[in-house]
Amino acid sequence: MPEFLTLLPPDQARDELLAHLPPPNPASESVAVIHALGRFTAADAIAPHPLPDFPRTTVDGYALLAKDTFGATDSLPAYLHLVGEVPMGDSPVFELNTGQCALIHTGGMLPGGADAVVMIEYTQSAHADEIEIFKSVADGENVIRIGEDVSQGQLVIPKGTQIRPAEIGGLMALGITSIDVVRKPRVGLISTGDEVIDPAQSPRPGQVRDINSYTLAALVEKCGGVAVRYGIFSDQFTVLKDAAAQALSECDLVIITAGSSASTRDMTADVIRQLGEPGVLVHGINTRPGKPTILGVCDGKAVIGLPGNPVSALVNGYLFVVPVIEKLLNALPKPRASVQARLTVNLPSQAGREDWWPVKLIVDRRSPAFNFEAEPIFGKSNLIFTLAAADGLLRIDPDATGLSAGEIVEVVLI
Amino acid sequence: MPEFLTLLPPDQARDELLAHLPPPNPASESVAVIHALGRFTAADAIAPHPLPDFPRTTVDGYALLAKDTFGATDSLPAYLHLVGEVPMGDSPVFELNTGQCALIHTGGMLPGGADAVVMIEYTQSAHADEIEIFKSVADGENVIRIGEDVSQGQLVIPKGTQIRPAEIGGLMALGITSIDVVRKPRVGLISTGDEVIDPAQSPRPGQVRDINSYTLAALVEKCGGVAVRYGIFSDQFTVLKDAAAQALSECDLVIITAGSSASTRDMTADVIRQLGEPGVLVHGINTRPGKPTILGVCDGKAVIGLPGNPVSALVNGYLFVVPVIEKLLNALPKPRASVQARLTVNLPSQAGREDWWPVKLIVDRRSPAFNFEAEPIFGKSNLIFTLAAADGLLRIDPDATGLSAGEIVEVVLI
Repeated sequence: MPEFLTLLPPDQARDELLAHLPPPNPASESVAVIHALGRFTAADAIAPHPLPDFPRTTVDGYALLAKDTFGATDSLPAYLHLVGEVPMGDSPVFELNTGQCALIHTGGMLPGGADAVVMIEYTQSAHADEIEIFKSVADGENVIRIGEDVSQGQLVIPKGTQIRPAEIGGLMALGITSIDVVRKPRVGLISTGDEVIDPAQSPRPGQVRDINSYTLAALVEKCGGVAVRYGIFSDQFTVLKDAAAQALSECDLVIITAGSSASTRDMTADVIRQLGEPGVLVHGINTRPGKPTILGVCDGKAVIGLPGNPVSALVNGYLFVVPVIEKLLNALPKPRASVQARLTVNLPSQAGREDWWPVKLIVDRRSPAFNFEAEPIFGKSNLIFTLAAADGLLRIDPDATGLSAGEIVEVVLI
Repeated sequence: MPEFLTLLPPDQARDELLAHLPPPNPASESVAVIHALGRFTAADAIAPHPLPDFPRTTVDGYALLAKDTFGATDSLPAYLHLVGEVPMGDSPVFELNTGQCALIHTGGMLPGGADAVVMIEYTQSAHADEIEIFKSVADGENVIRIGEDVSQGQLVIPKGTQIRPAEIGGLMALGITSIDVVRKPRVGLISTGDEVIDPAQSPRPGQVRDINSYTLAALVEKCGGVAVRYGIFSDQFTVLKDAAAQALSECDLVIITAGSSASTRDMTADVIRQLGEPGVLVHGINTRPGKPTILGVCDGKAVIGLPGNPVSALVNGYLFVVPVIEKLLNALPKPRASVQARLTVNLPSQAGREDWWPVKLIVDRRSPAFNFEAEPIFGKSNLIFTLAAADGLLRIDPDATGLSAGEIVEVVLI
């Protein structure tokens, strides 16, 4: 069992894998911004014009020259001559001179000559065309200047950004209604194991339904890839090698979930060795679950062998498949979603090994202070419903020999 | 400005809104499990059979009767008669009696009579059909018993669960390849404002492109709804009321993003008052951004008036629209994705008001300890690119008068 001789820490194993992949050079495609949610930008977005491209007020009030209000107070107001009202959605037909003001509504365009707006709360109509101002305003007060949001030519959304609602809004504000996004990486999924059958079939005693092709397909889809399921292959070297070679030629990344016996796991490693250079990089990782994971690169593409155990396959999918897809997408780093929670029980762990425990978060939805309890889900590590019952995964550092009840821990949401 | 007289805290405002909605009774539709990622289950999923439905080994080794190994050590091994090998994917044709064992591979089915498996590392082949066992095993050791993952009839995925990769795996393991999910709620989006134009058009001075219809549509899509954009309507009462009435009849929730002037905001409230009973529930919320937000219920459906300011509209979308969609989906509570981070600067806040600051997270991707710094993004609150640049929102409690540099804060990811 060569896999047990060279157990690498997961972070080091991941670095090794990513370092052997070529720099990302993803193909791109143009999509309408309204359909771009969740996609990754393939190029920097540059502002074609400033935003706003006219000076706007942020309040309801009177546009004026700030200097005309200096010293104005309740007891000693400034008196300004009202010359008109700024229409919404149009440029005012007048300009303001010293001593003049104009009624303006939030979002309205400042008339020429005006440099500030006083809120209507601090004013009073003295006569038909005269306004009392009870407060002095500074130059630029309550005004968004031209280019204050973004200036013309500014880089507004860097390449590799995942499009969220805010990016869609920013692009629309600039009139950018279609953008280039990275083509979704294709991820080939191969299941092996003489005991594994299609989920639509009824297993005979000794048979189990394929889980891994489907959990991993969903994971791939969730993080921005396209899953290509090649199906279930028997534990024969040439059968598996031919399937893997086809997947490698058609996809950007290949995942083989091994039949669970040791001999099949070794077969996966042998297939990766023959598939391309440099082949197997890591065989065996010091983590639980996931020790038998195999990381390889074959002619510039990652090929990952995951354990047949469905919990192990999915957890190691989060640890190793997701980062490869992020690299293929040329994605900018972003924080992983997690929550802080109080551990409910003591958890043992073997020193030197990184453990990932499925945990349930006891949620107080009404609490704004995010008070959660993290309740580990016990059970043998190959029971898929331990993961279905989990809200997240709790990492135990290799340096730790366990965690104590009451400790505040970080739970990565899955 | 009646809105400024009755500022409710956001949590109380949200409770008021949700309490006035009828109990959710969503329509459902059947989908293939492979297409169900992100959907919400409409019914409890029950295990049609136990999982596993035969006893399986979790290791490579020898199936045997545990009592035959009692007392076995390196110096005093037990000797068992090897009667065969368990084939993968089939039931063994033999049963084990006391004194017998059978070679078995991870995932293989235990032969009748066997109750435990000893790992191959603790064995040695003595003769052709005799195996030395160097370690005693307990009854059930290295075995998953029938129903140990789930038992027949067990509730495995409760109604209201959002389908993740793990749920897909669990359903597949049980041979459940299609499920009933909640039909996506339809959310009608109406933009108002004489200054607002379609993003594909070129604004004249004084005009701005519609942002809110698109940011909110993306938010709705992201949290499981279907957005129906009704377009941009002028600031005229009957025009707006007719549009809102149509949206209310066709959708499960209606959002009106108001033109930004005070008169238009009041018009939105008047429309909601006339649209159905009880009408406006909350007009004005003690939060920044978002003070002018209007929450209403008209004949059993939520109608929400959001400020025209795009930052305010989107932030208040997270605060008020998302919870309504979750209620329409009958979704189980789940933790919000967030990260803990160290605040880089002092942040002021007005006591009594809940503030939501856009912050950028400075990410150390390689750190397993999730060490982030939260850097607030300064700028007037109506600049959409302050949100596009943000990784999340930082909440400042109404009781606080600010936060200090160096404090650990919780940032809700957006």
